[in-house]
Amino acid sequence: MSKTVLVTGAEGLIGAYLSTALESRYTVRRLTRAPLPGLPTVVADITDMEAMEQACQGIDAIVHLAGSSAVESTWNDVLHNNIIGTYTVFEAAHRAGVQQIIFASSNHAVGGYEMEKAPDIYRRDHASLTQNTLPRPDSLYGVSKCFGESLGRFYADQHGMRVICLRIGTINREDSPTGASVAQMNPWLPSEALRYERARTTWQSKRDFAQMVERCLEATHVRFDIFYGISNNPHRFMDIEHARQVIGYSPLDSSSDAP
Amino acid sequence: MSKTVLVTGAEGLIGAYLSTALESRYTVRRLTRAPLPGLPTVVADITDMEAMEQACQGIDAIVHLAGSSAVESTWNDVLHNNIIGTYTVFEAAHRAGVQQIIFASSNHAVGGYEMEKAPDIYRRDHASLTQNTLPRPDSLYGVSKCFGESLGRFYADQHGMRVICLRIGTINREDSPTGASVAQMNPWLPSEALRYERARTTWQSKRDFAQMVERCLEATHVRFDIFYGISNNPHRFMDIEHARQVIGYSPLDSSSDAP
Repeated sequence: MSKTVLVTGAEGLIGAYLSTALESRYTVRRLTRAPLPGLPTVVADITDMEAMEQACQGIDAIVHLAGSSAVESTWNDVLHNNIIGTYTVFEAAHRAGVQQIIFASSNHAVGGYEMEKAPDIYRRDHASLTQNTLPRPDSLYGVSKCFGESLGRFYADQHGMRVICLRIGTINREDSPTGASVAQMNPWLPSEALRYERARTTWQSKRDFAQMVERCLEATHVRFDIFYGISNNPHRFMDIEHARQVIGYSPLDSSSDAP
Repeated sequence: MSKTVLVTGAEGLIGAYLSTALESRYTVRRLTRAPLPGLPTVVADITDMEAMEQACQGIDAIVHLAGSSAVESTWNDVLHNNIIGTYTVFEAAHRAGVQQIIFASSNHAVGGYEMEKAPDIYRRDHASLTQNTLPRPDSLYGVSKCFGESLGRFYADQHGMRVICLRIGTINREDSPTGASVAQMNPWLPSEALRYERARTTWQSKRDFAQMVERCLEATHVRFDIFYGISNNPHRFMDIEHARQVIGYSPLDSSSDAP
């Protein structure tokens, strides 16, 4: 029997694509804050413990994408949506006996290294950031992702849950490293040209992301780990060899093939 | 002119001792939640941004000890006192131009390694936990300390504040590794004998702790770092060589000299 997977934040850019992609292999339940027109969803606020315990009944694995996703998010937003929300998802999942959580972390959990070295870091062929890199968030958003990762480690150790944190790079609406939305991202970079250059090293195509999540869902041997969510890009400063070795991640796309 | 140092949690076991010890060298302001009989204090709730901004006026450095200190603390306690409280302290300090925060982290930020290897880890002469050890909290309390560390890293990188995190071992009321209060600590260990054995490796005397904080206050060359707060104990699994090298920590006590 196929696994039942709950996707939180299923109304979002990544969640909507992923939910559909996973349906070829799994029974997917979309969790959203409000009803989606024409699609069956589980409607719940991720900070509501009772609703989340209910939503977790009969679930084998959760892909936890819900939360504030902007690097500029305020403290109040990340406190509520990412810290309290992520705690509630883990605790409700534990109470309901869910066996695995795949947590959408972010490159911004370690973005401090990049800020120190940009733009040189975009021009080297050395994946200096690995699963062993110490937390160094570049934002309160990044701090909230570090929080989620250490919480995940705790639930893995203490409660025997399988937890994988994905430090996602850049996934964008147009699904190419030069999509129009990239121009708006990472406003701390002083030019659009640099933002595109960054996106070429940090890009992950939607199908590569979906493949990575699938490989995680099948990785019953992994108790806890951290992988970087990027495609097979040149000049990448985030490592994907560890994901290749541990879960067999084999990205189909590269920003060098994109316009 | 001597520095003005604000000690939060000055009513606590560590805070009361430290505040008095620092007075020989610094102007100390004690921050407490309620007035202390016979001692001038700044009364403020650390989660109250306005009160904390007020309390940070004219302060050069903060030693942030306030918060829930029990490893068994509930989520609601650590969320309020350690996560929201610590954020408020850092942000208020930044707004008021405070140059340094010394943050009372805990060995429980990396206690997952210990839980995996106890009691063998208490019987080896190898300091396997260093400043480069990845977060691995053993409790929600430990998760809140990992949060404070990554928040500190963010304020150091982003706002130029100097931040030092102290992963404190075991400081107890009787100021010896075999003090009566140790018997109550770390109830996950199955016997009192093991709790005492643990305390012999993780103990820090009050005066060694005060020395460590003083060395941190003088360490104007350190932008961000993590040190373990233990005395010169045998069989220690937490490193103190890094603290010796970077800030000249030179502990006067060892649990091998204690009864």
